[in-house]
Amino acid sequence: MQRVEFEEILKAKQKLKGFANVTPVFTNSTFNKLYGENNTNFHFKAESFQKVGAFKFRGAFNAVENLENSSKGVVTHSSGNHGQALSLAASMKNIPCYVVEIRLVPCNAPKVKKDAMKDYGAILIECEPNLRAREEGCAEIIKKTGAELIHPYNNFHVISGQGTIAVEFLEQVSNLDCIILPIGGGGMLSGCSIAAKAINPNIKIFAAEPANADDCYRSKKEGKLVKNENAPRSIADGLLTSMGDRTWPIIMRNVDDVFIVSETEIIDAMYFVFERLKIVIEPSAAVGVAVCMFNSEFKKKTSCLKNVGIVLSGGNIDLKKNLPWQIVH
Amino acid sequence: MQRVEFEEILKAKQKLKGFANVTPVFTNSTFNKLYGENNTNFHFKAESFQKVGAFKFRGAFNAVENLENSSKGVVTHSSGNHGQALSLAASMKNIPCYVVEIRLVPCNAPKVKKDAMKDYGAILIECEPNLRAREEGCAEIIKKTGAELIHPYNNFHVISGQGTIAVEFLEQVSNLDCIILPIGGGGMLSGCSIAAKAINPNIKIFAAEPANADDCYRSKKEGKLVKNENAPRSIADGLLTSMGDRTWPIIMRNVDDVFIVSETEIIDAMYFVFERLKIVIEPSAAVGVAVCMFNSEFKKKTSCLKNVGIVLSGGNIDLKKNLPWQIVH
Repeated sequence: MQRVEFEEILKAKQKLKGFANVTPVFTNSTFNKLYGENNTNFHFKAESFQKVGAFKFRGAFNAVENLENSSKGVVTHSSGNHGQALSLAASMKNIPCYVVEIRLVPCNAPKVKKDAMKDYGAILIECEPNLRAREEGCAEIIKKTGAELIHPYNNFHVISGQGTIAVEFLEQVSNLDCIILPIGGGGMLSGCSIAAKAINPNIKIFAAEPANADDCYRSKKEGKLVKNENAPRSIADGLLTSMGDRTWPIIMRNVDDVFIVSETEIIDAMYFVFERLKIVIEPSAAVGVAVCMFNSEFKKKTSCLKNVGIVLSGGNIDLKKNLPWQIVH
Repeated sequence: MQRVEFEEILKAKQKLKGFANVTPVFTNSTFNKLYGENNTNFHFKAESFQKVGAFKFRGAFNAVENLENSSKGVVTHSSGNHGQALSLAASMKNIPCYVVEIRLVPCNAPKVKKDAMKDYGAILIECEPNLRAREEGCAEIIKKTGAELIHPYNNFHVISGQGTIAVEFLEQVSNLDCIILPIGGGGMLSGCSIAAKAINPNIKIFAAEPANADDCYRSKKEGKLVKNENAPRSIADGLLTSMGDRTWPIIMRNVDDVFIVSETEIIDAMYFVFERLKIVIEPSAAVGVAVCMFNSEFKKKTSCLKNVGIVLSGGNIDLKKNLPWQIVH
């Protein structure tokens, strides 16, 4: 595949049928009352209820379905949701999965995610905590086993798989005026932007980003791909990566605006979703909610939009640690 | 109404249509694998996603719908989920709601519930923390205002409203072999037992109870209504009350078995639901899950049942306190 077309996303949707969950959409009258200044209705698509607890399963499963030589297996260097998703997808197809994971990662990969990968039968390989060690680790596995590298977002089949979220969302709520999605590497955002605009050319696609890892915000402003500075820090640990050369061109073309939020805003939004929507989400999944609650620029620009879609991207969080609002407040 | 017939529950379902949420049913392959010893499938009906975050809205709304003189309003002495539910139901019908609540309740009525009642426009009246003060408080309100007392469970319209859970559940999963429900005062259990057995006379109805507040367990054993000792203590604070004279006869007749679980088992079950099902539940809602996970008597007696329904009764919990597993583990 040289680029992602809407057709590829529809094909991905067919492949996912019966394997991925059709995730539910929730509304909340209190949220509408508090934050819907012009009778806006907010619709929350809860990918927390996706397999492995995050949207990443869609892309990983689609990538595994499209392997040229599947028997040799797959390899990735993400020990977060993508690693977990790829492990499950590979186990469902009965092929090996190797995950090169960084030793000593206090916040990047909660223990619950590593345990889950092992449960799915993935082979974990530890490496030193730097980019080079991780890339070398992957290269070595590929050389030894012939496994195919499945990048967490800079991969056309992954992007196509994530795009199925938007198709499903618009089937469930056909009159959405916009969809707001968290942006890390941009796989979900780029895939969903292609799908949503193919279905409804008038729909707005917005990105939500932590101010502490604002490569997308700055890239859109400067009109060229800008990366995050070394090791950005945010509680939204799924959004620390920078966009890739396959996601940025799509985002540049299709995304209408990028809005940023502070760490406290992310925590407050996450708390609202736990307390009132009763859904367990991870901090990265709260970023779009935070934009709707707190970003005044967003409110100004969207005041005429009646139906706002928000993607809650996942729910994998280590609950045995103190939850962030228990530390901050 | 002199007794609850299935027909009353169907009428309640009609009245609730468009006002109460049809709550979603979840399955979880990990739970099935870990606890479904004979390829059992577990189905979780999540009343966390009901209005006010708990099943109580069904009964309260049905009671308000059936008032003889609604303009004078309603009164209750529950400051928990029922108080919240009645406040919302009354506000939807534009009638006054009085809640007589005990001063100084460290665990019975989390602040979030009180805040919610005020948001719905209820009038809160404080009383001393004993049964007599509470009853006198209610009597005074009734005398002054003519409001009708809506008991949290010992009320036929409330029982009928709660029974709609079982009708809905069996519409969603028609082949359930049993339903397991938490038992406090017994409104939900009695209503659901009538509905479920009217739809399928072969279905088993099981009660799940904290060992620390086991009045139902002992009543079934002794064949007569036995109350909890003074002030039982359990983390499942919605289940501390004893059954009433309107719920017990139904439970005696219709409920096939009662299973009890320990405090640690309740906490572990609650943790599983948060971590793997990604649903915020309160401790009382975890009791049925705990029975399925840990009660060996339950496992023995149900080993031939293939489809087990579990009702997650609500999700109102003060998340700014430490969650119980953060204290215990």
